[in-house]
Amino acid sequence: MKILVIGASGTIGKKVIKELGREHDLICAGRNGSDISVDITSQDSIKNMYEQVGKIDAVVNAAGGANFSPLTELTPEKNEKGIQSKLKGQVNLVLLGLDYVNNNGSFTLTTGIMMDDPILQGASAAMANGGVKAFVKSASIEMPRGIRINSVSPNAVQESWDRLRDYFPGFEPVPAGRVAIAFKKSVYGAQTGQNYEVY
Amino acid sequence: MKILVIGASGTIGKKVIKELGREHDLICAGRNGSDISVDITSQDSIKNMYEQVGKIDAVVNAAGGANFSPLTELTPEKNEKGIQSKLKGQVNLVLLGLDYVNNNGSFTLTTGIMMDDPILQGASAAMANGGVKAFVKSASIEMPRGIRINSVSPNAVQESWDRLRDYFPGFEPVPAGRVAIAFKKSVYGAQTGQNYEVY
Repeated sequence: MKILVIGASGTIGKKVIKELGREHDLICAGRNGSDISVDITSQDSIKNMYEQVGKIDAVVNAAGGANFSPLTELTPEKNEKGIQSKLKGQVNLVLLGLDYVNNNGSFTLTTGIMMDDPILQGASAAMANGGVKAFVKSASIEMPRGIRINSVSPNAVQESWDRLRDYFPGFEPVPAGRVAIAFKKSVYGAQTGQNYEVY
Repeated sequence: MKILVIGASGTIGKKVIKELGREHDLICAGRNGSDISVDITSQDSIKNMYEQVGKIDAVVNAAGGANFSPLTELTPEKNEKGIQSKLKGQVNLVLLGLDYVNNNGSFTLTTGIMMDDPILQGASAAMANGGVKAFVKSASIEMPRGIRINSVSPNAVQESWDRLRDYFPGFEPVPAGRVAIAFKKSVYGAQTGQNYEVY
């Protein structure tokens, strides 16, 4: 199986690579230090990536961000990162990638716990997560050629806890390796339209 | 109570006006035929509306759209209407309107059944609905000065059924008047962070 992993050098991406296994042909993409350089906020960059990669069996995305900001300081401009990166970046990976995915292949996107269990400063990220989750559920019923689509919704991860603990009081962080297992279920399983919560 | 209703001349908006009641000071905004003209896809237009209206107790939005399209024909460009109108338009009504809403006031936005019960050609609208729902839930925990925020999620409405029936096979449309009752709960009730499903 030929699998394209975007955001491969991130905290979760690295564990996904490990979990998906060396018996498969993994192509790592990301903003830096990967086989292929891609910026998911740019349609041209996404198109260029797919042209380089060619036909694949699975697209796994662990990239995408949003600004943290107190709601009263959240301007439309600050909200734009979540729109362009975490939301549209991921949706466009699907819309622009459909023709590159083989029959019965799959897309796996990333959402996050903040849409279900909100935190201070998290409204922009929650918005993006909720948009991706709903897109996945709806798109799943009309994917062509048996292609599946799911998302994985991680809790804050232990590996980033020093940086995140003040934002997530009372949360129990999970190992990034547990999050990676959910990606495995999406890629090698047969379900579609799901949002796998790793909380 | 002084209430700003955006999308007031639409199928649902008209019923919302009726339901909210004449004992209140209702200001109707929309793209046409209203007290105030507004295009929610434009930040300048939103700002201009709030400047004209001044301090208010509640903002109710029944405006916002997205393109219907088969998934395989949904381009990033076609998806942009849902992003700019139904998603960002509504989020920006909150971000740009916070300072105009009185203490203990409220915002009420509109989502829709397609995020929960997907239909063919509905992925872009579902995405926007899911983003708004998650934004509302997260924003509700950090709204200042006792301001509340909810969304109403309507099923397809009977008044538009001739136009919509082919898109919603097997759905039971609801009267727009029932949807309007949920807006009343949001404006005159005390709950926050809710998405009222009128299915």
